Amino acid sequence: MSTAPSEFMAKVRQTTPLVHHITNYVTVNDCANVCICAGGSPVMTDAIEDIDDMVSIASATVLNIGTLNERTVDSMVAAADCAAAVGIPMILDPVGAGATAYRTSVAEALMDLGPSVIKGNAGEIGVLSGLGGDVKGVDSHGSQDAAEAARSLAERMGCIVVATGEVDYVSDGQVTLRLSNGCGLLGKVSGTGCMLSSVVGCYAGACGASVESMAAAISAFNVAAEIASGNCRGPGTFKPALLDALDSLDAATLDSKARCEQL
Amino acid sequence: MSTAPSEFMAKVRQTTPLVHHITNYVTVNDCANVCICAGGSPVMTDAIEDIDDMVSIASATVLNIGTLNERTVDSMVAAADCAAAVGIPMILDPVGAGATAYRTSVAEALMDLGPSVIKGNAGEIGVLSGLGGDVKGVDSHGSQDAAEAARSLAERMGCIVVATGEVDYVSDGQVTLRLSNGCGLLGKVSGTGCMLSSVVGCYAGACGASVESMAAAISAFNVAAEIASGNCRGPGTFKPALLDALDSLDAATLDSKARCEQL
Amino acid sequence: MSTAPSEFMAKVRQTTPLVHHITNYVTVNDCANVCICAGGSPVMTDAIEDIDDMVSIASATVLNIGTLNERTVDSMVAAADCAAAVGIPMILDPVGAGATAYRTSVAEALMDLGPSVIKGNAGEIGVLSGLGGDVKGVDSHGSQDAAEAARSLAERMGCIVVATGEVDYVSDGQVTLRLSNGCGLLGKVSGTGCMLSSVVGCYAGACGASVESMAAAISAFNVAAEIASGNCRGPGTFKPALLDALDSLDAATLDSKARCEQL
Repeated sequence: MSTAPSEFMAKVRQTTPLVHHITNYVTVNDCANVCICAGGSPVMTDAIEDIDDMVSIASATVLNIGTLNERTVDSMVAAADCAAAVGIPMILDPVGAGATAYRTSVAEALMDLGPSVIKGNAGEIGVLSGLGGDVKGVDSHGSQDAAEAARSLAERMGCIVVATGEVDYVSDGQVTLRLSNGCGLLGKVSGTGCMLSSVVGCYAGACGASVESMAAAISAFNVAAEIASGNCRGPGTFKPALLDALDSLDAATLDSKARCEQL
Repeated sequence: MSTAPSEFMAKVRQTTPLVHHITNYVTVNDCANVCICAGGSPVMTDAIEDIDDMVSIASATVLNIGTLNERTVDSMVAAADCAAAVGIPMILDPVGAGATAYRTSVAEALMDLGPSVIKGNAGEIGVLSGLGGDVKGVDSHGSQDAAEAARSLAERMGCIVVATGEVDYVSDGQVTLRLSNGCGLLGKVSGTGCMLSSVVGCYAGACGASVESMAAAISAFNVAAEIASGNCRGPGTFKPALLDALDSLDAATLDSKARCEQL
Repeated sequence: MSTAPSEFMAKVRQTTPLVHHITNYVTVNDCANVCICAGGSPVMTDAIEDIDDMVSIASATVLNIGTLNERTVDSMVAAADCAAAVGIPMILDPVGAGATAYRTSVAEALMDLGPSVIKGNAGEIGVLSGLGGDVKGVDSHGSQDAAEAARSLAERMGCIVVATGEVDYVSDGQVTLRLSNGCGLLGKVSGTGCMLSSVVGCYAGACGASVESMAAAISAFNVAAEIASGNCRGPGTFKPALLDALDSLDAATLDSKARCEQL
């Protein structure tokens, strides 16, 4: 990679991007806090009356369908339209796509509104790519080839695709990166995928959406998780430790620990 | 008891039941995390379009009326109907029944849809049993006889009833157990009752709803709370410690610490 | 001041006021827990069918527009009307007023329903006072003169106004206090402003809304934050430590550390 991950992190922290979210009520507090610890400023609003005013002053919008309903889906469409109009990145987290017909159809509808980044687990990206994936509830049970799913979906949609799992893949359809940081405790805490989407929103908002900026976002989050896993006693104390670690992550640690290879 | 609590715990951990929730937005994150730490896999969705698909793949559904509204009550009814149709346990947590007429009427309507378990605090169960209970806001101020309230409600409804308080009672109308684990910090954290309902959902989903399986769920949660009370400095650090303790609870500790007597 | 802050704290703890909230889904769990740790009993409900029954048994109602929508705004209006009818304090937290037209208009509509306390950050109070303020998303970027904004808004509305920031101001239009406790970590955690509103609700509910009772609420919260900042490793572990510190705050510490001067 030509740019060190820490250069993206520095830009996020310097510019404090305002990241608008329409996200689920299960993990929204963790999304807000991780956004702050990543260097951004979160704002959550899903009232249709609020969307244009708020998205217009934001640096990115994150649309997460974790607890979607008819009202908030309408607001997500409005946010996507506004993001396109004002030229800021829209990040789509298609939580549970493949688990229910409703989620799959909403995810596909939002995909058509020009996301800059689609970030899901391997199962969700597998489903949306058309290559197939296994999603039970909101958890991935894998896909046959997450790297190829990310690559082909990115190529088709003309955007960045992130497929997460034990290893994570980022692709723009041409360049595909394999990222191998993180720790097992990430799978024992609800919402770590949602939290990563908020971090992605910060990096896309501050640095634009590219394979390299997205890799930096993922590496920062996952390296912080590795540090946190040494400062906790289980899943409950891991989450506060993760926020602490991301907030205090320094450039040298990030760049030396980030494990990234091009496929 | 003929079966050790740890045998139920082992079955939950081996089978990782998918536990669907329609629950309140106050404590939903804690419910998701405690579900994982108990050995289950949580999924929260309350969109009517999603209910049949999601409940059909779940092992149990938990309906908690903590922040009910017209839309989510409709979805709870749909979830209860689907649970009955596919034959999975429905767990009802009638939060605040007795405090307002709306909550009481919704709780009674959901009671008529065939719950496998009704789990409330002593005040709520007292109200629903018809024997009387004192509920202020969402907190119980006790009932005259929680054991008898649980027993009589269980007998009338033909299901398991759990009435929580300083001591907890589980009854199927014939056998009534008195459980006396737990610690004072449980009353200093919002949502510990909701969290217990999620643990109950895991155990009912994996093991079926019986007096013994419910006693095991309650004992696991409350023994973990006892351990956590020694690993914290107050209500704030107690909650993460509780999740840690439940996640790492071992069979010998659970079986030796669980205090259960038949009335 | 004629009454020590700890005297108000003692009254809250002795009376355990039931504090009704209609608040945002981002920070609602923190509001519930801080309410308990401050000495109150929280209840959250936003169903229109529930409002009259619940507000009628409450000691105060806190209306926070952090994630407002048409349905919950209607319920806020009903809660404000009921609070006025039964004679309990209504506390308004106009989150994001000034950031969007919708938020500003809803805040102004609720201001007309007789709040006992309006508590916002300096930017929001600046906007609502008409003197001007800078609000980006839900964060204040300051106002020219927060003390004068608080004073003039209090005078115009005939209520208590709290304007928070690095220093906090409380005014009833005649007496204006400057409070200078707190710590930088409060700005690194989402929802500390919302949490303060819940503490304000406890103190207004138990002690009535006065410049002195509000100063006591703010001092208790901010002194706890100072203590917590020495018991954590960053923003993630700060929040549980803050709850612990507020729960265990003793009278001598509060009275000796509280920094308050009349302007």
